[in-house]
Amino acid sequence: MSAATYQAAGVDIAAGSRAVELMKGAVRATYGPEVLLGIGAFGGLFDAASLRSMEAPVLVASTDGVGTKTKIVSALGRFDTVGHDIVNHCVNDILVQGARPLFFLDYIASSRLDPEMIAAVVAGAAAACQAAGCALLGGETAEMPGVYAPGEFDLVGTIVGVVDRREIIDGSTIQPGDAVIGLASSGLHTNGFSLARRVFEGWDLHAAPPELGQPLGEALLTPHRCYLAEIQRLRAAGVAIKGLAHITGGGLIDNPPRILPAGTAIHLHRGQWPISPLFHLIQRAGQIDDAEMAHVFNLGLGMLIVTAPQQAATALHVLGEGWLVGEVAAGERNSVIHAA
Amino acid sequence: MSAATYQAAGVDIAAGSRAVELMKGAVRATYGPEVLLGIGAFGGLFDAASLRSMEAPVLVASTDGVGTKTKIVSALGRFDTVGHDIVNHCVNDILVQGARPLFFLDYIASSRLDPEMIAAVVAGAAAACQAAGCALLGGETAEMPGVYAPGEFDLVGTIVGVVDRREIIDGSTIQPGDAVIGLASSGLHTNGFSLARRVFEGWDLHAAPPELGQPLGEALLTPHRCYLAEIQRLRAAGVAIKGLAHITGGGLIDNPPRILPAGTAIHLHRGQWPISPLFHLIQRAGQIDDAEMAHVFNLGLGMLIVTAPQQAATALHVLGEGWLVGEVAAGERNSVIHAA
Repeated sequence: MSAATYQAAGVDIAAGSRAVELMKGAVRATYGPEVLLGIGAFGGLFDAASLRSMEAPVLVASTDGVGTKTKIVSALGRFDTVGHDIVNHCVNDILVQGARPLFFLDYIASSRLDPEMIAAVVAGAAAACQAAGCALLGGETAEMPGVYAPGEFDLVGTIVGVVDRREIIDGSTIQPGDAVIGLASSGLHTNGFSLARRVFEGWDLHAAPPELGQPLGEALLTPHRCYLAEIQRLRAAGVAIKGLAHITGGGLIDNPPRILPAGTAIHLHRGQWPISPLFHLIQRAGQIDDAEMAHVFNLGLGMLIVTAPQQAATALHVLGEGWLVGEVAAGERNSVIHAA
Repeated sequence: MSAATYQAAGVDIAAGSRAVELMKGAVRATYGPEVLLGIGAFGGLFDAASLRSMEAPVLVASTDGVGTKTKIVSALGRFDTVGHDIVNHCVNDILVQGARPLFFLDYIASSRLDPEMIAAVVAGAAAACQAAGCALLGGETAEMPGVYAPGEFDLVGTIVGVVDRREIIDGSTIQPGDAVIGLASSGLHTNGFSLARRVFEGWDLHAAPPELGQPLGEALLTPHRCYLAEIQRLRAAGVAIKGLAHITGGGLIDNPPRILPAGTAIHLHRGQWPISPLFHLIQRAGQIDDAEMAHVFNLGLGMLIVTAPQQAATALHVLGEGWLVGEVAAGERNSVIHAA
């Protein structure tokens, strides 16, 4: 080959810089006084002085992606929602241990960097961070021709939060008789997209199936909901939260047992909460049985809250939403879903 | 389609679990007493009590990938080194601000999850974490058929470290006359692979070009070096480090100016350090000019250290390696490379 240049080899450095400019304003809006600016340009700096006032600060960290929801995003060319997905997913993942978010970092990689696409994704992430009181402290973009399929991208988020040790929610006090409250999901959230995409292969994402009342693509892209405010409200009201299960990959079957002590099972009762039309459509179109549906999807419940039975009514009142969807019983550590 | 199942749609949940088992031992070895085990299974918990003894703890975080080095890894099917790459890259990225690593999280995604591949990557990351005194606190794997090209994968790392505010290295005291010391890189590190792969397109990665004395693939895969111990040794010896530049994407041209105060430039002198044979081979085979080489590659220098001129000899003595490769001069904020 003759006179190779870095740009010719597929990496457009200038494009990267333009994207950085576009997203800068949205990111700056997430900066509280803890974010230290202007010193160095490599890692993000976060003042941890406030942790010194905590009795026993514990940092809680989680990294995750949004799965093949990115393929729907790419197919529709709508990049404004997926940043909300990754931030809210991460916020919820550490919230279940009682942590509040401190800062978030994102990584976007594609076969080719499109500055406007990156700016839209990061602006969405920044808005979700701001809503959660979390700094978008840093991020990275990578152009990896040959690694990513043409036109596709991946989005990875990492969140770091903090919880005072005595406020960690760990499920250890869960016992038979406890109540299980479910909070509504906003849709598929970020799970089950490989199956959903297979079911809808060949469907027009812009068309609105009658039962949805909105275009299929729009229903699929509905952002992952954040439960931070709801859980903070419960705690502020003095409701003792014994356990929280964020319903992600593995659906209503695999996630609840992760917080259960040995010898306890969660029983959920279909009919106690509404299963939104998108799930019914997926099930019918894909001829998927109930067990598989519950093993893949959240089926309308994005977060489960375990409380003592005598606090359930207060919790529902404070929340102003949600349903009593089940209870804890003695048994093998498991999640059991009963027919309506 | 009939009776879709999650596994049939390309996501093998059991395979994910097997990988987790395989890598578990290596990851556990990175756990110091700060890692809180057995409470919850969602986010990783890191006891931050030690931060309370610092005067003004500042958390430093960075997220990054290894670029298309993953394509060489995939082509050779050698997955033991790339975990070292991502960890060491991240450790160096926060080291330049004076931070020591606390914990690291990884993300591996591919079109199809191979448990042995994931276990090898994570075991490498765990070994590098252990060497840097850093906990591998969490991670995520994702199978994303259709997003990643068949057989390809991406590897993303996020590191969180801490530095006492008064020990932040920020380049602000750099002034004309300061010395610039260079520490050897171990090879390409994790940068310039898009160009290098283009140059070597069609070459046999298993063959050993005479000037390399080792197979080309092996030379390309040499892990990114970690500079943590060297910088800690300098600080322990009382050398005042004014600035550190980790030479990553953008090579010797774009990285040094990131730490310079306005009105100062870094001048490097070719011939003051050895440029390893791999760089010469890339330049010759790709007919790449000197300027482009310096803009893409580290050219044998993975880390630059700026000190007062009167401390340079002590620094080199304490390090027992490295070279005086240049100096700071008045001028536009820039990196200038002079011919030998």
